[in-house]
Amino acid sequence: MFLKVKNINIATGGPLIAILNCKDANKLNLQEGDRILLKKGKKEIIAPINITDLSHPKEGQIGLYSELSTVLKTTNGQKLKIKPTHIPKSIELIRKKLDGTILTKKEIKIIVKDLIENDLTEIELTYFVAGCYNKDLTKKETEYFTKAAIKHGTKLKLNKKLIVDKHSPGGVPNNRTTMLITPILAAAGLTIAKTSSRAITSPSGTVDTMEVLAKVKFSVKEIKNIVKKTKGCIVWGSGTELAGGDEKLIHVRHPLKLDPEGLMIASILSKKASVGSTHILLDFPIGKTAKIKSVKEAKKLKKKFVDLGKKLGMKIKGIITDGSEPIGNGIGPALEARDILYILRRDNKAPKDLEEKAISMANKIFKMTKTKKDAKKILESGLAYKKMKEIIKAQRGKASIKPEEISIGKYNYSVKSSRTGKVKEIDNKKITRIARTAGAPSDKEAGIYLYKHKKSKVKRGEKLFTIYSNSRDKLNRAKLISKQVIRIK
Amino acid sequence: MFLKVKNINIATGGPLIAILNCKDANKLNLQEGDRILLKKGKKEIIAPINITDLSHPKEGQIGLYSELSTVLKTTNGQKLKIKPTHIPKSIELIRKKLDGTILTKKEIKIIVKDLIENDLTEIELTYFVAGCYNKDLTKKETEYFTKAAIKHGTKLKLNKKLIVDKHSPGGVPNNRTTMLITPILAAAGLTIAKTSSRAITSPSGTVDTMEVLAKVKFSVKEIKNIVKKTKGCIVWGSGTELAGGDEKLIHVRHPLKLDPEGLMIASILSKKASVGSTHILLDFPIGKTAKIKSVKEAKKLKKKFVDLGKKLGMKIKGIITDGSEPIGNGIGPALEARDILYILRRDNKAPKDLEEKAISMANKIFKMTKTKKDAKKILESGLAYKKMKEIIKAQRGKASIKPEEISIGKYNYSVKSSRTGKVKEIDNKKITRIARTAGAPSDKEAGIYLYKHKKSKVKRGEKLFTIYSNSRDKLNRAKLISKQVIRIK
Repeated sequence: MFLKVKNINIATGGPLIAILNCKDANKLNLQEGDRILLKKGKKEIIAPINITDLSHPKEGQIGLYSELSTVLKTTNGQKLKIKPTHIPKSIELIRKKLDGTILTKKEIKIIVKDLIENDLTEIELTYFVAGCYNKDLTKKETEYFTKAAIKHGTKLKLNKKLIVDKHSPGGVPNNRTTMLITPILAAAGLTIAKTSSRAITSPSGTVDTMEVLAKVKFSVKEIKNIVKKTKGCIVWGSGTELAGGDEKLIHVRHPLKLDPEGLMIASILSKKASVGSTHILLDFPIGKTAKIKSVKEAKKLKKKFVDLGKKLGMKIKGIITDGSEPIGNGIGPALEARDILYILRRDNKAPKDLEEKAISMANKIFKMTKTKKDAKKILESGLAYKKMKEIIKAQRGKASIKPEEISIGKYNYSVKSSRTGKVKEIDNKKITRIARTAGAPSDKEAGIYLYKHKKSKVKRGEKLFTIYSNSRDKLNRAKLISKQVIRIK
Repeated sequence: MFLKVKNINIATGGPLIAILNCKDANKLNLQEGDRILLKKGKKEIIAPINITDLSHPKEGQIGLYSELSTVLKTTNGQKLKIKPTHIPKSIELIRKKLDGTILTKKEIKIIVKDLIENDLTEIELTYFVAGCYNKDLTKKETEYFTKAAIKHGTKLKLNKKLIVDKHSPGGVPNNRTTMLITPILAAAGLTIAKTSSRAITSPSGTVDTMEVLAKVKFSVKEIKNIVKKTKGCIVWGSGTELAGGDEKLIHVRHPLKLDPEGLMIASILSKKASVGSTHILLDFPIGKTAKIKSVKEAKKLKKKFVDLGKKLGMKIKGIITDGSEPIGNGIGPALEARDILYILRRDNKAPKDLEEKAISMANKIFKMTKTKKDAKKILESGLAYKKMKEIIKAQRGKASIKPEEISIGKYNYSVKSSRTGKVKEIDNKKITRIARTAGAPSDKEAGIYLYKHKKSKVKRGEKLFTIYSNSRDKLNRAKLISKQVIRIK
């Protein structure tokens, strides 16, 4: 059947969806959620349909949401050939996964291919995530998933023999080591094409923080140019085709904040592979209120990454670090960006814990790659800052911005100590909750500034932390949950 | 914040969704999928948002998909007050369910309320169904769910002391007893406000078949009038507010065809309660290829219904019937509608098995309600047909249509026996698959006509069944899977 295009200037937020008038849907025996094949020239796209009994689109027309019209480059009134297609095989396999069955290599490949090619709806992907959450992907399944994601995904193709990379999981507030390690390594001549992500459950992700200083969303070609020019980049991975189907999975994982381990490993390593990373350092922060609770757990997870890395031809090292409190003082995009600039600019407001962690991690990567350099010297000499300014400039940001020029929430509230003593514990989860309640990360200027860390001495009445927000209402709500966050003894 | 309405003449297919321009979303610190409260006069609605960076809607406008603009009765340019709202408590509870936790009465109530009030997105509901699928609702949870669905749902309020009802599960092709029992009971003076459903996994649901003869989608008020006039009706339950949140759950269950028992029981009994049913007969067909495989399983399920019925003040009886083969000859909406008319019109093409089953079930209901009537006589006297014509007329259908006037698929293919013998087995699942592949139920005229039933004698070369379709392509595909459906020995 031929239908006339009616571009609908509305985004679905991801999925490619077409709308048919109920009369045409009836002619084709299609129901809501069925799939059609759209043909324009040699281009073929499969999309699920919505059906309307109103007149947008009318009979004879096909409505295309903006993602779909962008992919097909359609103009209004243009004729498109459409035809009903079969239900993807994946659906049966997703049900199998939900039933607890271990999937074969071939089956995983089919799911990943359908995922990357946009053949699965949100509901179907949600069931897949629920299946993985209930019965995590096995080691083998994770391997197949990762390999298929690499195979069917887009690659950066930097054509370099040695590309370094690092990864820290969320869960520990701030911990923004990427924004220091990247300029240090690039300044030392190593190539690091760092793709990061936005916060899902934390007050900020590396991308949210970097975005305070520069643009983060680039095409694959643009990323390649940035890295060619500066040896480094700190960009949004999910904003590119490099992420394969990852963004879609993150979208359905988000509402319930689900993070099944197998999917997480596959997601991280396939993205590392897509930029060609050869040497990767993984950070496993442990703590009572961090994602990983014990050394045993961290070691188990580390082994899974290292083993899978071998199968993918990557050298992976893992380090177990202290995740029992936030690393750095600022929490939330703007406040974290200030911390980074303080460190790079050798300002005395620089948080020492974050600086030391970044130096130690950068040195580990130098060791892994037999690079005879010293991270501390690169930082102290100003070379890392110079490199960061180059990267910010290449990413169309404000390279010369000073920390204090980064604006932070106009309303604030300081929590003071009710006793004199020493800080025994800082609850990461409570800090996260307060910062998010204050508006982070969608309000970039919201968050927390911590004056104290573990083992700090505190006097009664002294400030422990300040909450920032641009909304009085949010600040008030954050205030309500700001007690018993820091334990003093 | 006040925004100007821009009605978007597109249906979402159910959920109430608003679209904000990214600039307004940023001002309010809202992300895709966050929720807003929309206020128009005294009316308040909570809806999740989509965010667009295009100009539909522009800054200062709020786009309302047609479901939302219908509920709020908005006109373009009208000002609406909107404000971000908190995430529903249900989300945390859905995650708990997915984690395998048994929910409390209060927790279930919160979920059901949010479900009925449209506060949950498709992704969130999908996780809820996945949770129920993985760890089925307990007896107590099912009770709480049903009671909450009754409490928060709309009711028909017929104001009758005695209202009868029946239910058969899907899985056995045809088995269209409702369309015979309803006119028999109504002709006998009993009240039966039958709400039925469309096929999810079968070639036709009662509503799909009834729709061949009459309209099935009515408002609660219209249903009340039909029942007042004729004592009976056969309407689409999910098309009304009587269904509570059931339609939304069916929508997310559909893609993977999930049918968790607890949800199924709650769904059936809350719908029966919403029309005020006091006496209900349940049919449990068992068979190797039916939904229920054994007498033991049927008895267990029956007990669950009867027990819950007591807590709801309903008298429930269950009968265990033969589900080892299709009941009736036609399979698919049009072919089944023909069967019903053959029986009601006392035509010699009437399928005896379906007729006998309906008579026996109707008599059981007479016994339950101490009604001194004989279903066979009501059928033979033509009173049931007369009543059915009244119901069809009240439901704005063609009361005088003759079976042969109901058109069936223009292409057909007959499967013949390769041997002489006796029919030993008919595979319900294969029959279903063939009929659906041929296009049923969305192509009402597609399906199968069965010439033979179990124990029928068959000669080599004699027709076993004919497949009908309006699509050559679909008929061909159905043909390919039409072997070894009927076992002859």
